[in-house]
Formats: sequence, structure tokens, C-alpha cells
Amino acid sequence: MLQKRKIINDPVFGFINIPNDFIYAIIQHPYLQRLNRIRQLGVAAFVYPGAQHTRFHHSIGAMYLMNEALSNLKMKGLHISEEESDGALAAILLHDVGHGPFSHVLEQTLVQDVRHEKISLLMMQKLNALWNGKLTTAIEIFKDTYPKRFLHQLVSGQLDVDRLDYLRRDSFFTGVVEGNIGSARIIKMLDVKNDKLVVESKGIYSLENFLLARRLMYWQVYLHKTAVGAEKMLINTLKRAKELSHDGHRLFASPALEYFLRNDISIDNFEESNEAFDSFISLDDNDIWVSLKAWCTYPDVVLSALSRGLVDRNLFKIEISPEPPDEAKKELLLEEYCRKYGISAHEASYFIASEMLVTDMYNENDDSIDILYKDGSVKDIAVASDMFNIELLSKKIEKYYFAYLRD
Amino acid sequence: MLQKRKIINDPVFGFINIPNDFIYAIIQHPYLQRLNRIRQLGVAAFVYPGAQHTRFHHSIGAMYLMNEALSNLKMKGLHISEEESDGALAAILLHDVGHGPFSHVLEQTLVQDVRHEKISLLMMQKLNALWNGKLTTAIEIFKDTYPKRFLHQLVSGQLDVDRLDYLRRDSFFTGVVEGNIGSARIIKMLDVKNDKLVVESKGIYSLENFLLARRLMYWQVYLHKTAVGAEKMLINTLKRAKELSHDGHRLFASPALEYFLRNDISIDNFEESNEAFDSFISLDDNDIWVSLKAWCTYPDVVLSALSRGLVDRNLFKIEISPEPPDEAKKELLLEEYCRKYGISAHEASYFIASEMLVTDMYNENDDSIDILYKDGSVKDIAVASDMFNIELLSKKIEKYYFAYLRD
Amino acid sequence: MLQKRKIINDPVFGFINIPNDFIYAIIQHPYLQRLNRIRQLGVAAFVYPGAQHTRFHHSIGAMYLMNEALSNLKMKGLHISEEESDGALAAILLHDVGHGPFSHVLEQTLVQDVRHEKISLLMMQKLNALWNGKLTTAIEIFKDTYPKRFLHQLVSGQLDVDRLDYLRRDSFFTGVVEGNIGSARIIKMLDVKNDKLVVESKGIYSLENFLLARRLMYWQVYLHKTAVGAEKMLINTLKRAKELSHDGHRLFASPALEYFLRNDISIDNFEESNEAFDSFISLDDNDIWVSLKAWCTYPDVVLSALSRGLVDRNLFKIEISPEPPDEAKKELLLEEYCRKYGISAHEASYFIASEMLVTDMYNENDDSIDILYKDGSVKDIAVASDMFNIELLSKKIEKYYFAYLRD
Amino acid sequence: MLQKRKIINDPVFGFINIPNDFIYAIIQHPYLQRLNRIRQLGVAAFVYPGAQHTRFHHSIGAMYLMNEALSNLKMKGLHISEEESDGALAAILLHDVGHGPFSHVLEQTLVQDVRHEKISLLMMQKLNALWNGKLTTAIEIFKDTYPKRFLHQLVSGQLDVDRLDYLRRDSFFTGVVEGNIGSARIIKMLDVKNDKLVVESKGIYSLENFLLARRLMYWQVYLHKTAVGAEKMLINTLKRAKELSHDGHRLFASPALEYFLRNDISIDNFEESNEAFDSFISLDDNDIWVSLKAWCTYPDVVLSALSRGLVDRNLFKIEISPEPPDEAKKELLLEEYCRKYGISAHEASYFIASEMLVTDMYNENDDSIDILYKDGSVKDIAVASDMFNIELLSKKIEKYYFAYLRD
Repeated sequence: MLQKRKIINDPVFGFINIPNDFIYAIIQHPYLQRLNRIRQLGVAAFVYPGAQHTRFHHSIGAMYLMNEALSNLKMKGLHISEEESDGALAAILLHDVGHGPFSHVLEQTLVQDVRHEKISLLMMQKLNALWNGKLTTAIEIFKDTYPKRFLHQLVSGQLDVDRLDYLRRDSFFTGVVEGNIGSARIIKMLDVKNDKLVVESKGIYSLENFLLARRLMYWQVYLHKTAVGAEKMLINTLKRAKELSHDGHRLFASPALEYFLRNDISIDNFEESNEAFDSFISLDDNDIWVSLKAWCTYPDVVLSALSRGLVDRNLFKIEISPEPPDEAKKELLLEEYCRKYGISAHEASYFIASEMLVTDMYNENDDSIDILYKDGSVKDIAVASDMFNIELLSKKIEKYYFAYLRD
Repeated sequence: MLQKRKIINDPVFGFINIPNDFIYAIIQHPYLQRLNRIRQLGVAAFVYPGAQHTRFHHSIGAMYLMNEALSNLKMKGLHISEEESDGALAAILLHDVGHGPFSHVLEQTLVQDVRHEKISLLMMQKLNALWNGKLTTAIEIFKDTYPKRFLHQLVSGQLDVDRLDYLRRDSFFTGVVEGNIGSARIIKMLDVKNDKLVVESKGIYSLENFLLARRLMYWQVYLHKTAVGAEKMLINTLKRAKELSHDGHRLFASPALEYFLRNDISIDNFEESNEAFDSFISLDDNDIWVSLKAWCTYPDVVLSALSRGLVDRNLFKIEISPEPPDEAKKELLLEEYCRKYGISAHEASYFIASEMLVTDMYNENDDSIDILYKDGSVKDIAVASDMFNIELLSKKIEKYYFAYLRD
Repeated sequence: MLQKRKIINDPVFGFINIPNDFIYAIIQHPYLQRLNRIRQLGVAAFVYPGAQHTRFHHSIGAMYLMNEALSNLKMKGLHISEEESDGALAAILLHDVGHGPFSHVLEQTLVQDVRHEKISLLMMQKLNALWNGKLTTAIEIFKDTYPKRFLHQLVSGQLDVDRLDYLRRDSFFTGVVEGNIGSARIIKMLDVKNDKLVVESKGIYSLENFLLARRLMYWQVYLHKTAVGAEKMLINTLKRAKELSHDGHRLFASPALEYFLRNDISIDNFEESNEAFDSFISLDDNDIWVSLKAWCTYPDVVLSALSRGLVDRNLFKIEISPEPPDEAKKELLLEEYCRKYGISAHEASYFIASEMLVTDMYNENDDSIDILYKDGSVKDIAVASDMFNIELLSKKIEKYYFAYLRD
Repeated sequence: MLQKRKIINDPVFGFINIPNDFIYAIIQHPYLQRLNRIRQLGVAAFVYPGAQHTRFHHSIGAMYLMNEALSNLKMKGLHISEEESDGALAAILLHDVGHGPFSHVLEQTLVQDVRHEKISLLMMQKLNALWNGKLTTAIEIFKDTYPKRFLHQLVSGQLDVDRLDYLRRDSFFTGVVEGNIGSARIIKMLDVKNDKLVVESKGIYSLENFLLARRLMYWQVYLHKTAVGAEKMLINTLKRAKELSHDGHRLFASPALEYFLRNDISIDNFEESNEAFDSFISLDDNDIWVSLKAWCTYPDVVLSALSRGLVDRNLFKIEISPEPPDEAKKELLLEEYCRKYGISAHEASYFIASEMLVTDMYNENDDSIDILYKDGSVKDIAVASDMFNIELLSKKIEKYYFAYLRD
């Protein structure tokens, strides 16, 4: 029982009740509060000015949906203890806590092979030690070692409340209305069969829509070409900054960012060294932006041009194609940059970037989405759907991006 | 120029300006006002209590979208004269004017082979005579005899403003949020190439979403099993009423409905006889409901049971299957009805109904949806989409419905 | 426990769960289903084409808010038994069940001194007899004879869930966005002190907004001049129809409507005669519309002109003024009608109407809205608000409407 | 004419067209892009996690409403030249460009008497020089020296598009739904009479609602006690940082922030010195946050405690009262802080703050809101409203806030 009822005003779901003091304590902890300073969509705000919502806000929304899902399952007669319920709520609240600013950018630049799930787990373990084991169930659910495995599926699976929240929330804040999914309908249709999450058969159209909406959001938002261009630009900027730091340049940076510019950090460091860990959880979007602004005037033409472009929203131009970019064209561009800026070929290489991007709607290596029929039988959606089939669902769409500095 | 600016408050699109006095005159005409008494979704309100919106409201919404589409095309440099613009606006306003109440029900019961498009055209022609040819362009656009054929496509095609409005509006009023389509985005992406409507390539995800949302709305709303059960029940009720009338029974009915109960009317009658035409345009949802209520106490067990069921929302039970219903089961049911109600096999047959229902996402016999690329090339969406293909898009989904009176 | 969970899709509040089988039985009963055929806002659809929502839909919405309010009060530690909870839910579901079509119109024409609350009570009592007393608590709450009087306040008071739903719902369907009230916030702030509903002090701004939004909806929607003109026209039409019926004319009408045209019915008749009661509950919007359409061609110039005007939306012109309308102007108009239509002065009087309309924001004769402070003290909002005061809140705004037939 | 049509996706107003290349150039300029890094509501995100929207987004929304207002006025027959239209659009886009991060905080700490309007003007003048006078009309409109004074009123007045946007937008992103105003309705009702903005009389209820919604947003959002507590805490933190800097401490800060910590800057400096100006426009929310994080570990107990509180959302506790806070209570608190933290009375004074906050609904010293009647007469809303009067409208509501560090 809460001493004082706490409510959070959410433009997406309305009033969100915080269910109890334990959950409130997690929300109040600096680890979660830090997510208030990390945007959910990183560079997407370059394209969608409304997309300023934070990972904190998303975590709260996912907790709300988890609560809805658990209530619904209990109403259908499933037994879920209070401890399990708290565990699932805590696990979803903390599932993103290990994210750094501009996650994918960081993972390719400032750290090596440090996946945010690992850091999230590390942070949960630290909290668990602090709170005398109160997070043990949450950790087991998160790691999928808890016996009731559907709880893990709700936290992380093809149809978890993480996705249900972020698709809906990202659609809301970007204004891409077609990305809106029927999260409430899907949650009402959830059930558990043989310890596995299933969806009642009449929810099948909402599921098909969910899969397609997710795909739409990928290409319309997450992999929007301008956003991808900005991300490439940011990656190259941070790589250049790291290179310069290694070469002895003293770039302006916050203490936390400086640590990562000067040191090569892998996941082992996080487990061994408080400095790596503490520096990481001190980092947020602000550190990146402040440095970018300061670097605009740094006397390295590469670093300053890239930083200035990001600060003034003069982003990489980007071309998308089903084919890899033409090598000759790349060479020509690099030569131009060398000549124009008086830089080396290595330096010029920071002004271009290319990548193959892939999405699929449904990953058959993950758990499947199973449909429950009235006769008790269960089918994978790839079989149940008269619209999709496994070939289509697991088809990978590949696009080649080629990005380069504008004149 | 309007003497007095007219604005309609629409919860879906906000304020809708009525562009000029000619359009205002159409809206004020009794033909269009009559649509205020015909619900857009007929029996769907049995399932979705919010789905009370009218064909009038839809017509206004479609006019708004037409205006948006025309403005957008003009902004892109296309020449559309004021007469053409008025013609397209008038055509879309009047495109549904020939609908009767519960259209598909009527077409299977009270009239024979009378498609609403024919009556709409007849009504436009009458108005055109009244207004000295002011609707000539509108009629040509409607009939697809006007040279700029993309104007007809906007009125009636795979991507017309009719569908763009009704999907969005039906989604809004039913509360089926996943049916929401990005109508604004699609309209912004419209262009014309070789006198044919095309969509800019970056709108392709919105189009895929539009096709899937349409499919979802079919199964979730338009062909919702309870709604189909109600529709079958209403069809059988009206067929029974017609049979009884032919046999000399004097059933309560409004003058207009009585005309159709007593006479066998085909489209020829509409063209030749003012009585058929006038009776038809006097009919609306109210006539059906008032008769159903009166028939609840009529001393024919078939008519009264069916009417009572509709009035009290005790609807046909319905089963859906990929296979046709079992004949033996049907026979058994009929026997039970005969015994229970003391009626003949013929009479009992009104208590059951079965049908195969089919939908597809994209009808290749209609005009195609064409995608315009930056290099000026054009591809059918069935080719352009990396998600859909022509086989999938034109795949017909068939379901067998079997409906019968509840105990 | 529900055998089968029932959910209603509401575009205003999302999915609404039907809490149990008893409540479901009420919803399924023909008395409540009948409200599906009565629009919440009667003639307002002449102005706001989206305002087609029904009294059934409103009743469901109010039940949802009652459920929210009860859950919230229980969470604050108040004891409410299951029987009381069901009673309150049943009372709010049934609170409008006695409404006829176009209620205020009817009360001035077809019946005498028959307030809908009385009929609602009569209907509840009939159901209670049918269901062996299961509605006893609901009836006591409705009549305010139940000991926990705050339950009655939730059903009918200055801050009842009836108002909370209809303001929000009417705002939603008309598109008058400013009428949107913070119903969720107000419900979260509700508490009970000394058996009386109170609102936590931090909800005071939402309350002020609620009172002003209610006032805005009055003038912008409920008393919109076009709607008032339509209502006056409908009243005069029905009065004329009744007069003609008394004089021996046989007007087309449904059996139920005919009963009220031919007989003078007061509340006593309802209690004594099944015929009055049964006829009343057979009446809905459809009966009125079908008759209006039939009367368009009736050979009484008054009845046909008025009916035609309503059917074709050629409504009374209306003038609003702080002063009563000028008698000389009235006389002149009447003379013109006499001359133009060749009718008597008495007959011409049906072509005009005038009335003084009054609203206030807060009726001090009703229960007060009380604010609860953290120190446990309670103040009337008229005292607590730094914006309003009792004089302002209870100030009655009066406007004179003068309506007359257009040329 | 735009070479390439530009559209911005806005979750509040849908798609926003950028009208032409001139306006697009303003939007792309670094001055406006910088507003992407300044939140509209500063500290309010501590209370409303969705309130992350930026001043850039608000500026775009206000431009959209300006465009709507101008189109509407032109449709009513008012002549507005293209130059004037561009001037008004530019003026509203740039009206907030001089805001710093957490504006009111800054104005009380880092700079002296530097109002953002002055800086906005300075920035417009710099752009005007750059663009050869293209902003001359915009500047005149902004300064209210342009002959058509209603254009200035649209930029800055009691009913300007600034307020119309921010109330609606802040309501949207906070989720405080009652703050939603009928911006579209008000804009449709705007007209000009004697070179002054007026509102058609039937818009009066929307105006009353607008004034009350604004008041609600003040107390519910802008002056929410937790937000005020956070603001006081931030003010004291920056004051302490400045004091320490003056005393020779070298605190971590971005170059731009360091400039303001080390120097005492007034508006004169901005006009004279490029360094002040350039430092100012390099500042945004990120600079403040990065420093707060760094200061958490600084060995000054005052600075670190305050910074830590802000970073971890352990904010000042705040009490509100109609009376000034008790001096004895203050003294007691200060003594406790001195003892607990081992600091001087001067240092302890950073841990408390008090202020009287005032709002009114309508400032009679500003221009009035005038209502236009059908007979052409005009009345101040304070006279025209039957709800408000001038006494009530101009009544100042005062509340005393007392804020202090939590244990």
C-alpha cells in the first residue's frame, strides 16, 4: 500500500498510477531518473521535432502496459503472485536502464561490444545488493531464468510491452499516425498457454497490423534517411574525437565523456572498474551536445566541420539504393574533400559513410507469436494468418545507405 | 465567393470550410440532407455503439479531403480550373447520394439489381436539369467520361477520397484505432503522371499501411461476425415482410416502405416512374426501425420473432469457418425450429442464413495504385512494394458464415 | 465473475469492461437497448453532424466513470460493498432509461408533466419486480434513500458521473474541443467526508474548468441558436399534429406515436395503464422522423410546412436578444403568414415561437461542490475558489429567443 | 514558390507546410535551430515527463497558426500583401529566438536585466543585415512600428498566436487535457476593425474558455509547486556557482557557460560585445545539465548538495500559502542546515527560497480583447462577457511559495 498515492500524467495513456512503494522507489532512484536525460529516439528529432520524449517516459509507459497485461491475465484466472507481479514491473521499468545517449552511436564509437542489456543487468544487480535481494525475482525474469517464462516474454519477446509502448509512444510524439497500434486490444487478447504467451484468435488482425506498423515505423522513423544520415555523422564525429584524443589532443568534454574519449572500454571494464561504470551512468544526451558545440571551433577541420553540421542541422546528404554505393563515386567524393579542405584521404573518409540496413517484421529465431483458438489449439501467426506467411514475415529487407558531407 | 462563410465542425478533421455557394447549395439540398438519416455503417452499431455517423457526415469529410487533394495538386503545378475543381467537389459530395438505408440489405430484398451508383447518377441528372447544367462536369467526372481522368480516380478508384475518408472516419467512430490511416500523408504524396493519379515513392509505407488497415477494418468492423449476423437477420425479416405483403397481409409500414413491400422494383422502374424514385428517396433508417418495432407484435411467428430479435438485440448466432456449413446441422436446426415454433420448413428457413464472404486488399481489375519515383518512372505498388506482391495483394480471403436464430 | 468477459469499444474512453453478469443483464435488457435508438443530443445534429451518439452510449460511458470513481474511493480506504457497488453501477446505467425521443420536446407536447426521472424510476421498479429485488439498492441510491448518500451524489449531483460523461462525450462527438473536461483528474481527486462527496483541494482548477466548460457547452451546443430554432419548430409541429388528431384528422403515425397524438397522458396514466407505459417505451427517434416525412405532404398547410422544413433542414430563423422580442414585429410576421399561406391567426401562430432561456453554472439549491483541504477542513467551491464567488456562480444568464418560419 | 515543398510533421496540428523559401531559410538558420536544444517549459518536465517539447517546435506551431490567421483574414476581405504576410510569419518565427535555457532562471542569475525580447530583436537585426533588409517588415511588426498594427497584435498581444500555440501545445505534451483551447475556432472568429484585432461575437465563449484555460495552465503547470521548487533550486545553484567563480573557484563549465559565470553581463554588453552575444547563443539546456552533473562532486557542500538534488530529482520541498512564510520557521531551518552541513548562515541561505507569485487572467494595461458585434459595434470582453467582468478579469491572484532543501 502506498502511503501517498502517486500518479503520473501521461499524454499517451492518461493518468498512470504507481502501484506501490517499491515501484515508486525504483522510479525515484537516480538510475531511472537519469533516463530523463536520454531521448528515446536519439537523432530522430532532427526529422520529427516532436520526438523529444525520453527513455524514462517510455519506461513508465511500458510499466503501465505491464500492469494492464498482468491485471488482464489475472482476470482470466491465471495465478500471479504479488512478488511475481512486482518482479515483472521492476524488470520492465529497469529493462532500458543501461542505455547510454544515442545508444547505437555509442556502441560503435565510445565503447566496444558493450550491449545495453548487459549494463542494465549490472545496474539491476547493484540495486539488488543495495536493496537486500528485493530485485531477485525481477532479475530472474529479466534473464529468463524464472520458471514462469511468460513473464520474461512480457518484458522481452516478439510481443512484449516494451514494443507495445514504444510503437504507440513514438507514433504519438512523431505525429506518424499510421504507426499507432491497438495496444489495448492486444493486451486484452493476451493469454497464457503452456507457460507461453498467446493471443486469442480474434486478435489476429490487430497482430498483423502491429507487425506492419512496426515495419512502417522502421522505415518512416527509425531508419528515416535524414535520421540515418545524422547518425552516421555523429558516429564519425565521435570516432574523430576519439582519434584526436588518442593522439594527444585535449578536446573539451565533460568529465564522463572525457573518460570514454581517452580510454578503450569493453564490457569487462564495466564489471571490474567503478570508474567505467560511474562514468557511463553519468553520461547522457547533454554531454554529447555540449561537446559538439564546443568542437565547432576546434582547429581540426574534420572535427569542426562535422560538429558544426550537427549543431546547425546541416546533415550528411544521404542516398538509398537496393545496390551498394558505387566505389568510383566514393573515390571522387573523397578526392574533392581532400582538395577542398586540404586534408588527407584518411581524414576525408570521416566525411562519408555507408551501411547496409536490414529489417524484418518477425524474427523466427526469437520466440514465435502464437495464436490461441477456441478449441485450445495454438498456431504460430506465420501459419495462422491468411495474410502473412513465414517467408514473407521473415523476409529481410535490405537497403544500402550512402551518406556524405554536403557542400 | 461565399456571401456568408460556412463552416462545419467535424471531430475528425476539425473545421471544414465550405468552399463556395455552389457547393453550399448542394449540401443544403434535400437529397444530401436525407443522408443525415442514413448511417454510414448500418448494422455495425450493434457491435460498436459509437458507429452512428451518417452518410452525410462522410460525404462532407470526403469533400474536405477532395479539396485538400486538389489544393495539393495545384501547389505541385497541375492546372485544375475552377469548374473542374467544383465538378470534382460536387461529384464526391453526391457520390453516395443514391444509397438507401442498410444499402446491401435493401439491394437483396426490397429492390432488384438496383445499385446505388445508378441512383446516385439519376439524382445528379435531376439536379443538373434543375440547375441548368451546372453539374455537367461533375457528372462527367463521376461517369469517367471527363478528359482529365485522374479527377474520376479521386472520386472512385483504389485510392479515392471516399476510402480515405471512410476508413479514417469509421476508425474514429468505432474506436478501432488500428484502422487509422495516414490520409493527410497520402494526400500530400499524391501527384499526377500521364493523366493518372500516382503516389510519390516515399509514401509507399503509408500505402501499404492503408491497404492493410482497410483489410483490418473489413474483418474487424464491416464483416464483424455479430454485424453480419444482424444483417442476415434483417435481410430475412424484410424478405418475410415482402412475402407476407404479397400474400395480402397488411403490415404496418411508412408510405415509402409500403411501396417497396407491395411492388417488385428494378432499376427500370426508377427511370420510368416518379413513384419508385420518390418513394426511394423518402426511405431512410427510420422507416426500417419503425416497422421492425411494429412487427414485433404481428401475428406471424416468423416476422415477429425476427423483428423482436433485432429490436432487442438478440441477434442471430453466427459461426465462421473456412468450410461451408454442414448440411446435416442445418437440417437438424430447421427441424427444431419447425417443432418449437410450429412452422413449416419454408418458414423455418427464415431463421437461418449462410453466405461466403470474400475480401481482397487490392483488386487488379480496378485501376492500379502507381508509385512515382524521383527519376520519373512509375511502378504498380504490387511491383514496387518489398512487402506485398501481386499474388498476396489480389489474394481473396474467403470465409463461410452460418447464422441462425438463438434459442 | 463473468462467464465470458464482455468489452465495449468506446472511442471516448477506450475499452470498457463490463464488470459482471448482473450489469451485463441490465445492458442487454430491451429497456436499455431502446436507448440505442434515442440520440443523446436530439436536434443538435442539425448543427453538429457528428452528434449522433445515443443515450445508450452515454449510459455505458457513465457506468465506466462510476466504476472508476468507486475503485478510486476504495483505493483511498473507503468501504463500499459489492452490493453497493453494483447498486451504484445499476443506478447510473438506468438513470436515463425513462427518456423519450427529443425529451424536452415531448414533455411540452405529447405528454403532460411527465418527467423522465419518474419514468426511469417506474422502469427500475418493473425490472426489480422481474429480478426479485436485485435492484433494490440501485433504486434506493437513485431515490437518495440509501444511507451512504455520496452514492446518490455520484449518480445525481453537481459533480455526478452523468455530467462528467456527457460533457466529455458531447465535446468529443460535436468536435467542440474546448468543452473537454478533465474527467479523469476530477475522479482521481474525489473523496468522501462526512458521507458527502468532496474534491481534494488541488483539483480546484479542474473544477473551475469543469464549471466553465459546462457553461460553454450550454451556449455553444445545447442552446445553440440553430438547435433551439429546430426544437421550437419540432414542438410546434407536434402540437399541430396533436391538435389535428384531436380534431379528427387521421395522420400517419407509428402505433406508439398515434397513442400519444390521440390521448392526453400524464404521469398518472403511466402508473395505472400498461398501454401508456408500453407505448412510451416503444417510442424513439425513428417514430418522430417517419411521421415528419409522411406529414410533408399532408393537406394541412401548417403541418406540412413545418414538417418539410425539419426534413429538409430549412429551420426556423432565430434571433437572440437580452430583451424580449418586440410584440409589433411578431404581429407583423403573423399577418404576413396569414396572407401568404391563407391561414388563420391561430394557425399562423405555429410559425413563430419565443422563449426565455436560462442557464447558471452552479445551482446553490442543489448540493454544493465541496473542497477538502489537507487539514481536513471543507469549503464550498464558491468560497474556496479565488476565481469564482457565489454571486457569479449562481448568476443566471437569461437570453430571449425569437424563432420564426423562413420565407 | 518553393523549389522543393517542405513539410513538418507536428503531432499537434498535423502536417505543417512551410510556405516559401524565405521562411524556410529562417527555419534552417542556426539561430532557430538552436531552439531545438531549449525546452519550452524548462523545469516543468520534473512534473510532467512528456513536457520535453522545444521552443523550436513552438515557434513552428505559432507560424502555422499565423498562417491560418492571415489566410482567414484575407478570406474575410482584408488586404494583406505578400511582404506583410512574410513579415508576420518571420516575426512570429523569431519572436522567441532570444530565449536562453530556463529563461527566467537565467535572467535572475547569469545575466542582469536582459529580457529575451531584447535579444530576439538584436538577433533579428543581425539577420536583417545579413539578408539585406529582408527582415525589415518583420522587425517593424515585432517592434509595433508597422502601420498595420493588428499584425503586431497577432505576434504579441492578449490573443496572439504565441499564446494560442503554447497553451494548446503545452496542454498536449503535459497531458493536462483541460488546458486545451479552441485555437481553430478563435482563429476562424478573428477579424480586424479600425486596424485592431477583434473577435466575432459568437466566439465569446471560446474566449472565456481561453482565458480560464490559461489560468488553469498557470497554476497546474507553469506555477506547479514542484516545478517552482525546482526552479528556485536551480536559481540558487547557479547563484552559488557564480559566487564561487567570483571567489576564484574553477568550476567545470562549457566555454559559453563559463563566460557567464565569470563575468557580470547586462544588456549593454550584448550590444557592444560579440563575446557576450556569441556566448549567449551558444548556451542551451545542455550546458546547464552537464555542469549540474559535474558539480555533484564538487567540494563545496552547498553547490554539490543543490546540484545532486536537481540531478537526482530530490527537489526543494515547497509550501504554498496565502500568507508570507513565517520568519521564525525560516530561522529555525537555517540553523538546522548550518548545524547539519557545517556551513555558515550565508551558505545555508542557498537552501531556502521564498517568493510571491502572481497571475491574472487579463491584463488591462495590455491591449484589450475586443468583441465585434453584427451591427459593427465593438466591446471589450470585460464588458461583453456575461461571465467575467473587469474586476474579476484583472484580479491578481497572489500566492506565497516557501521552498527548502529536504532532509
